[in-house]
Amino acid sequence: MPDSPFWVDPASVAPDHLTLSPEESHHLLDVHRASAGTPFQAIDGEGGFFECVVQSVEPRAVRGRIVERRTEVGELARAIRLLVGMPDWGAIEQIVAHGVPLGVSGFDFVLCERSGRGAPGAERVERLTRIARAALKQSRRSRMPTLAFAGSLRKALAALVGTASRFLADPDGAPGALPLGKTPQSAIALAVGPPGGFTAEERHLLLDSQFTPISLGPSRLTTETAALALIGIARSQL
Amino acid sequence: MPDSPFWVDPASVAPDHLTLSPEESHHLLDVHRASAGTPFQAIDGEGGFFECVVQSVEPRAVRGRIVERRTEVGELARAIRLLVGMPDWGAIEQIVAHGVPLGVSGFDFVLCERSGRGAPGAERVERLTRIARAALKQSRRSRMPTLAFAGSLRKALAALVGTASRFLADPDGAPGALPLGKTPQSAIALAVGPPGGFTAEERHLLLDSQFTPISLGPSRLTTETAALALIGIARSQL
Repeated sequence: MPDSPFWVDPASVAPDHLTLSPEESHHLLDVHRASAGTPFQAIDGEGGFFECVVQSVEPRAVRGRIVERRTEVGELARAIRLLVGMPDWGAIEQIVAHGVPLGVSGFDFVLCERSGRGAPGAERVERLTRIARAALKQSRRSRMPTLAFAGSLRKALAALVGTASRFLADPDGAPGALPLGKTPQSAIALAVGPPGGFTAEERHLLLDSQFTPISLGPSRLTTETAALALIGIARSQL
Repeated sequence: MPDSPFWVDPASVAPDHLTLSPEESHHLLDVHRASAGTPFQAIDGEGGFFECVVQSVEPRAVRGRIVERRTEVGELARAIRLLVGMPDWGAIEQIVAHGVPLGVSGFDFVLCERSGRGAPGAERVERLTRIARAALKQSRRSRMPTLAFAGSLRKALAALVGTASRFLADPDGAPGALPLGKTPQSAIALAVGPPGGFTAEERHLLLDSQFTPISLGPSRLTTETAALALIGIARSQL
């Protein structure tokens, strides 16, 4: 059986079978040399995880019989929303490539005062979506995270409605574990500044929005390293 | 004042002054436009952190008067030794680039049964050393981590003498915080398998060597993501 699940469009999932896209069909048939009867797994990016067996093989549309349906495979008990002051593109790609396997459910790269650049073009977003999707399959998660690019910190905060536990990577914060509280269903929000950090005004806005400052230790971290460390800590507590 | 410290060879540090290398002198003079009287900071990679003022300016040998000597700036309370089953080169560079700011004191990339490749050539090691040194300066740490490439897991374990708390990233481990124990002076050892994982025999060798298995969560992580998550957790507990 192939090691990672295949991607299936939710619209291509019927009660007892599903149909893979031309690209995924090609991958299953030509790279993994599957044929009728080969077992495989599929995810729909909306929490669905399907144990399948190849039923019929057409070159550009493999049909799989669904043997078992599971939900939320590989997902954490609480959603993690990550708000990052926009860094450079290499850093954004690293945050997504590591953050998806670590369980982030939503990324928002936010234009801050010290961000060197604005929102990305369509090509960049498409490339980032491909990275996120590949990381989702590789990590055997089932729910595709959202990718957003807020034009301001206020807009990003307005989009965080419903997150009860909020933490800000901050040199002046308390070190150690995150005080996650006792609201097991609610999402967790994590915020990390852009290169150069949040301005005093942005920091106040975050503190006013119930973000608790957390120190990540005695050395200075880049935006991407701080983001990965903070996600790792949150994940270890879920 | 320049934002990051400059590198100084320990042999070039006198009781009241220090002399920068030609490369670092160029950087201070030509990039940061320093002149006599400009304050700067320097690290010797052995825990020394020096607050200085430019005393005399020769094109290839800036001399700085030492205003204050500090030690172990940016360093954690306990040393973290990281043992990683050899992944590909991109992954090794990412682990070092993020692991140095996060406080790792020694990296050992170990040839395991499922490692696709052996020890690196001199050029690769030199490049990795440059990455580590740049990350040390950028993160304002003062002690340069060691970089090793053990030819076998047994050799890597033999080199870990003196680490009292040992943890292994393992899907079958217990989730959550690391039981670090009450030996505040001793080093912590963290182990992460190569792509494909440790073999059953390698895993037994680690368990026999007092490594405690720790689960990093419900999704599957690559070697580099697992290493960064495990370091982040250990760091948050120090």
